[in-house]
Amino acid sequence: MSDPEIVVSAPGKVILFGEHAVVYGRKAIAASLDLRTHLKIHLSPDSTSVTLELPDIHLSRTWQVADLAAARPTGDADLKNPSPPSEQYLAALHRLAGTDTDHTDTRSLALLAFLYMYTSIHSTARTCPAGRFHASSQLPPGAGLGSSAAYCTALAAGLLTMCDVITRHEGKNDGTGTTWSKENLEVINAWAFQGERLIHGNPSGIDNSVSTFGGAISFKSGEISALKSVAQLKILLVNTKVPRSTKVLVQGVKDRYNRLPAIIEPILNSLEEISGTCERVLQDLGGHPVEIQENTQEKNYHVLEELVDICQSLLNALGVGHPSLDQVSSVTAKHGLHSKLTGAGGGGCALVLLRPDTAPEVVDNVKTELKDCGFDVWETSIGATGVSQHSQPK
Amino acid sequence: MSDPEIVVSAPGKVILFGEHAVVYGRKAIAASLDLRTHLKIHLSPDSTSVTLELPDIHLSRTWQVADLAAARPTGDADLKNPSPPSEQYLAALHRLAGTDTDHTDTRSLALLAFLYMYTSIHSTARTCPAGRFHASSQLPPGAGLGSSAAYCTALAAGLLTMCDVITRHEGKNDGTGTTWSKENLEVINAWAFQGERLIHGNPSGIDNSVSTFGGAISFKSGEISALKSVAQLKILLVNTKVPRSTKVLVQGVKDRYNRLPAIIEPILNSLEEISGTCERVLQDLGGHPVEIQENTQEKNYHVLEELVDICQSLLNALGVGHPSLDQVSSVTAKHGLHSKLTGAGGGGCALVLLRPDTAPEVVDNVKTELKDCGFDVWETSIGATGVSQHSQPK
Repeated sequence: MSDPEIVVSAPGKVILFGEHAVVYGRKAIAASLDLRTHLKIHLSPDSTSVTLELPDIHLSRTWQVADLAAARPTGDADLKNPSPPSEQYLAALHRLAGTDTDHTDTRSLALLAFLYMYTSIHSTARTCPAGRFHASSQLPPGAGLGSSAAYCTALAAGLLTMCDVITRHEGKNDGTGTTWSKENLEVINAWAFQGERLIHGNPSGIDNSVSTFGGAISFKSGEISALKSVAQLKILLVNTKVPRSTKVLVQGVKDRYNRLPAIIEPILNSLEEISGTCERVLQDLGGHPVEIQENTQEKNYHVLEELVDICQSLLNALGVGHPSLDQVSSVTAKHGLHSKLTGAGGGGCALVLLRPDTAPEVVDNVKTELKDCGFDVWETSIGATGVSQHSQPK
Repeated sequence: MSDPEIVVSAPGKVILFGEHAVVYGRKAIAASLDLRTHLKIHLSPDSTSVTLELPDIHLSRTWQVADLAAARPTGDADLKNPSPPSEQYLAALHRLAGTDTDHTDTRSLALLAFLYMYTSIHSTARTCPAGRFHASSQLPPGAGLGSSAAYCTALAAGLLTMCDVITRHEGKNDGTGTTWSKENLEVINAWAFQGERLIHGNPSGIDNSVSTFGGAISFKSGEISALKSVAQLKILLVNTKVPRSTKVLVQGVKDRYNRLPAIIEPILNSLEEISGTCERVLQDLGGHPVEIQENTQEKNYHVLEELVDICQSLLNALGVGHPSLDQVSSVTAKHGLHSKLTGAGGGGCALVLLRPDTAPEVVDNVKTELKDCGFDVWETSIGATGVSQHSQPK
């Protein structure tokens, strides 16, 4: 058994480039977003119950350890290579959660993912430990920022560490936390993906991969590749809070594509080239020692800003823009900053690129103006560390 | 000698689609703009002087007929196939105008074009007629709307008609005026092109062609083709009055192209496909008898609106947008109308597509809001009749 207190955190994700184009087999780039979900596990050897606290969605539930232990799947389980739950096992989880397969609301799905991971990861253990699981997130839910993946990744990392399936890897510590070996991260990722499947049905695996490994990945036709030594970029993340349906937006692009394929096809090709260029620039920015970086950095930031502008215009050409996103662009452009929608568009979130030397007063002015528009704004970074364990409770 | 009073008018032009892409050999579509330049010629057989009045640019100049006659080029002239003036002849014109080759302001060039056409077209005539030439235009100058071509086309038509080089063709009269046979229009166009060369040095020939023939043309790699039976479309023409340099904007696109060719190339391909689709839709809209037109019309207008939106976004992706043009888009979109920049961008003019059944109060509201932004707005049409002779002085 590990420490009685375990704290882990996992980041969200943003799509940097290639949203929508990815549906047509074009390359997309996603990066970790340093708005994190923290999971604090406090083990109570003297207790007989397990409590899950999710204050963001006003949820607190307690189960008897015996009931959870009884719901565990039977048979041999490969804890390093998880497989989806059987129907019978899933039914048992629904009974414990007090939900059924028709419940697709955030709270029901969050309960289900926890119960699944808790019971599965303890399937070969002698006993199930009692304790309190407290998860809270800086990520707004349902905004396309991978909040469910961050939750699942943090749960997987916390539970696997707690059961000693994986062990803390002290080699890497950037001051914010400790992470695990590549092999152990693969195990966390596999579990997080199973959690995502329970929540989303048929997820791409992008969100949990980015949350686990951090940095940035490219994604094309189902293939995920990690980018090497990616730079961390400062950004503002803006939530316009305009509700939108990803499904409706994807269908809108499909309709436009079917009406005007010869016009839309080259736009998708251009978006693919933007992703490819971004990949090279991010690795170039991340791969240089600081001393010789300045000139390259200036040039690379200029290219990134140009990619952001072009991509935003091309997404508008696909019809997934929104007046609220135009407002973000207009406010940021006025201050010499560059922004694009991230994710499905039609409202939702936008990211604003900051340079390492963007003056703090510019950032403050832009934040104030964007907040005055009624938007939520976070000053954060992308390309940050993936899932981490923290020595001190947070 | 014709009537002592001749009134002709020639339209301006707008680029509908393909601006900037045309520089890279892609197809552009231009259409006549029903903001016209009117030329009124009043012959005075008893007078010995010729007066040119251009009230729009506060210009009025009078010459003795004898001086003009003396400046006429010598040698055989083919009035149906004009050639550029010799250096010696050009020097004589400059002396008459009181300008020199360094004067490239609107007034100097307007004088020069008039003197060139007046003296050349009378080069084989026994005498030069005295009279008053009064030209005024609904077109703002220097806004990329072909005002110089409309001026040259009206001058050519008026002078050629006055000298009986061409004769009025009574076959076509749509209520607004009379036009000429195709052969005679070719002669007008050839003269207007020579006038344009004096003014612009190396014009594409698009502006004078559209002003002469009306309707719409496609233009690709130097080849101009008239579109058959084009529909007239109601539009709002908006002048943001933001000054811009076409040269700087074209260079900006070139720079972006050179930096990111793989990203920009497909955008140009998409713009070419937009022009091709527009060509088909305009001819489809114009080619149907009114009875069976309604369904097709609805569908075609929808496509045109989509082309306008996509094209505007792609021009933004090329970097030739401007906050003033975003403002036009935002105002018009709010009322369900679609707009794009026309010409070089970076300010300048925009066109707003109207449907035949767009409610007048919507049009009025949009006009008011655009004027409140400080823009000039005209309710006009594109695809209108080319150069015309009017029976009644206007």
